[in-house]
Amino acid sequence: MSVDPDQETKELTAREQAVTDEAVASFDASASVRYREVMQSLVRHLHSFAREVRLTQAEWEQGIEFLTRTGHITTDKRQEFILLSDVLGLSMLTVGINAPASAGATESTVFGPFFVEGAPEVPLGGDIARGAKGTPCYVAGTVRSTDGTPVPGARIEVWEADEDGFYDVQYEGDRSAGRGWLRAGDEGEYRFWSVQPSPYPVPQDGPVGELLTAAGRGAMRPAHLHFKVDAPGYRTLITHIFVAGDPYLDRDVVFGVKDSLVVDVVTEPPGTAPDGSQQDGPWARVTFDIVLATQQKENE
Amino acid sequence: MSVDPDQETKELTAREQAVTDEAVASFDASASVRYREVMQSLVRHLHSFAREVRLTQAEWEQGIEFLTRTGHITTDKRQEFILLSDVLGLSMLTVGINAPASAGATESTVFGPFFVEGAPEVPLGGDIARGAKGTPCYVAGTVRSTDGTPVPGARIEVWEADEDGFYDVQYEGDRSAGRGWLRAGDEGEYRFWSVQPSPYPVPQDGPVGELLTAAGRGAMRPAHLHFKVDAPGYRTLITHIFVAGDPYLDRDVVFGVKDSLVVDVVTEPPGTAPDGSQQDGPWARVTFDIVLATQQKENE
Ligand SMILES: [Fe+2]
Ligand SMILES: [Fe+2]
Repeated sequence: MSVDPDQETKELTAREQAVTDEAVASFDASASVRYREVMQSLVRHLHSFAREVRLTQAEWEQGIEFLTRTGHITTDKRQEFILLSDVLGLSMLTVGINAPASAGATESTVFGPFFVEGAPEVPLGGDIARGAKGTPCYVAGTVRSTDGTPVPGARIEVWEADEDGFYDVQYEGDRSAGRGWLRAGDEGEYRFWSVQPSPYPVPQDGPVGELLTAAGRGAMRPAHLHFKVDAPGYRTLITHIFVAGDPYLDRDVVFGVKDSLVVDVVTEPPGTAPDGSQQDGPWARVTFDIVLATQQKENE
Repeated sequence: MSVDPDQETKELTAREQAVTDEAVASFDASASVRYREVMQSLVRHLHSFAREVRLTQAEWEQGIEFLTRTGHITTDKRQEFILLSDVLGLSMLTVGINAPASAGATESTVFGPFFVEGAPEVPLGGDIARGAKGTPCYVAGTVRSTDGTPVPGARIEVWEADEDGFYDVQYEGDRSAGRGWLRAGDEGEYRFWSVQPSPYPVPQDGPVGELLTAAGRGAMRPAHLHFKVDAPGYRTLITHIFVAGDPYLDRDVVFGVKDSLVVDVVTEPPGTAPDGSQQDGPWARVTFDIVLATQQKENE
């Protein structure tokens, strides 16, 4: 019997669409309207992807195996799914989608895979390095709202890699270093010591590393210091400061750089620091003023 | 200052598109053309999804957390990512995309999360139940190519749940039961004993169970027996037989039912079975003839 190829393609497409329609409809009775909306969109786009590339059975198996290994390498100290989201640009896209409308607020960037719950509190002016290797770096600024009002008592959490490019959690053992939180003072002012940020490669010994290799991509992030700033009535700010002049600013593997977040890190000779402390060796200083957006009811 | 809302939306869209473009371009230097094609399509569709639903930061976090738990519950005996793919219809879509062009071949369905490597061999006519509870069920048929030629020595692997709806791997301990493989005889004929398939719910104690609850979906699969059939020169066939009359045929949680795979399971009174064995209690029998598609170079 002869087969009309156009007819065959039409039947194939209809059969595939029937699977998609059935999977979409299976979320019709979702308890929440939002859950239904998100899941039905997810199913549609996931299916569009598979149909567009004509996903083979072997590729589907590779995908399952990739996700399985991503899950197995993820611990409470290593978040390979966040890293995956980061290198696919999904994290920065989500940051962009949720950017506050309020003009003038400090811009956000990726959360990254290295945040750890339960970091220690340090006093205003204290040292979050706590043993992390690197050139001492004095960071200071103020926390204000978009109308210029200071935000006293804002909770500022920071975390960073040491001068070798590693976070504490990437070392053997349970040492906590290069992370901590403090409260802004009565005028919204804050200051702390840390180490000068260094560029580093994201972890390459897991599935995401394989992805980067297969894609012919570098693994470097420009030097940065992570901030998470919370205050009642304000939107939580998750951001970084980047170091002006860093060679990787235009090729961040997680697409996190925004011009407004690039700051000057000034290296100083041994001597007296702004807090009156005597520095025996070279040290660095950064000023970073933070502007928080007002909390919005929707979208939170 | 006054802000033009249309202008604002345009800038927002452009900013989001810029993130997508950057992420897509990051795969330009992929070592393989196919890797580039698949990953760039994946990034585009993933980003389209996030933009369409205006994914919130909290939803992104829930997604990361969902995938993390899916990874952590997955072991060499439980494959929650396959189950996730199954309940989202992605598995059946992939089966459809890869359906062999050759008319007359036995249709495929989902692989499912309960296949285990290293199942034991049983002789032709042997019992794969090996202690699994249920009514004895005699399964027989022939393996042929689409032109009717028998396929002697085809490797037939089968696996199934017991009468309580559980696979061996869902019990405590390391017992292997309800699974095994055998070789077809010289004329492509095969026969084995198993237990009569029962409907069962997919595991509901993990992230996929939560998804089904949130979606207001049932968790049942109609009664079935899994087949994986391999022979040199033929495409691997992954399929099931379903039991005619099963109440869940029209609402399989993984969308796996195809009419051509629904077979009659006939219950017989105690007496002599086709292999001459004496059955003390009721037993069942099924005939299932298998037609393999010729191996194609492409798409494998
Ligand atoms: Fe970082
Ligand atoms: Fe099954």
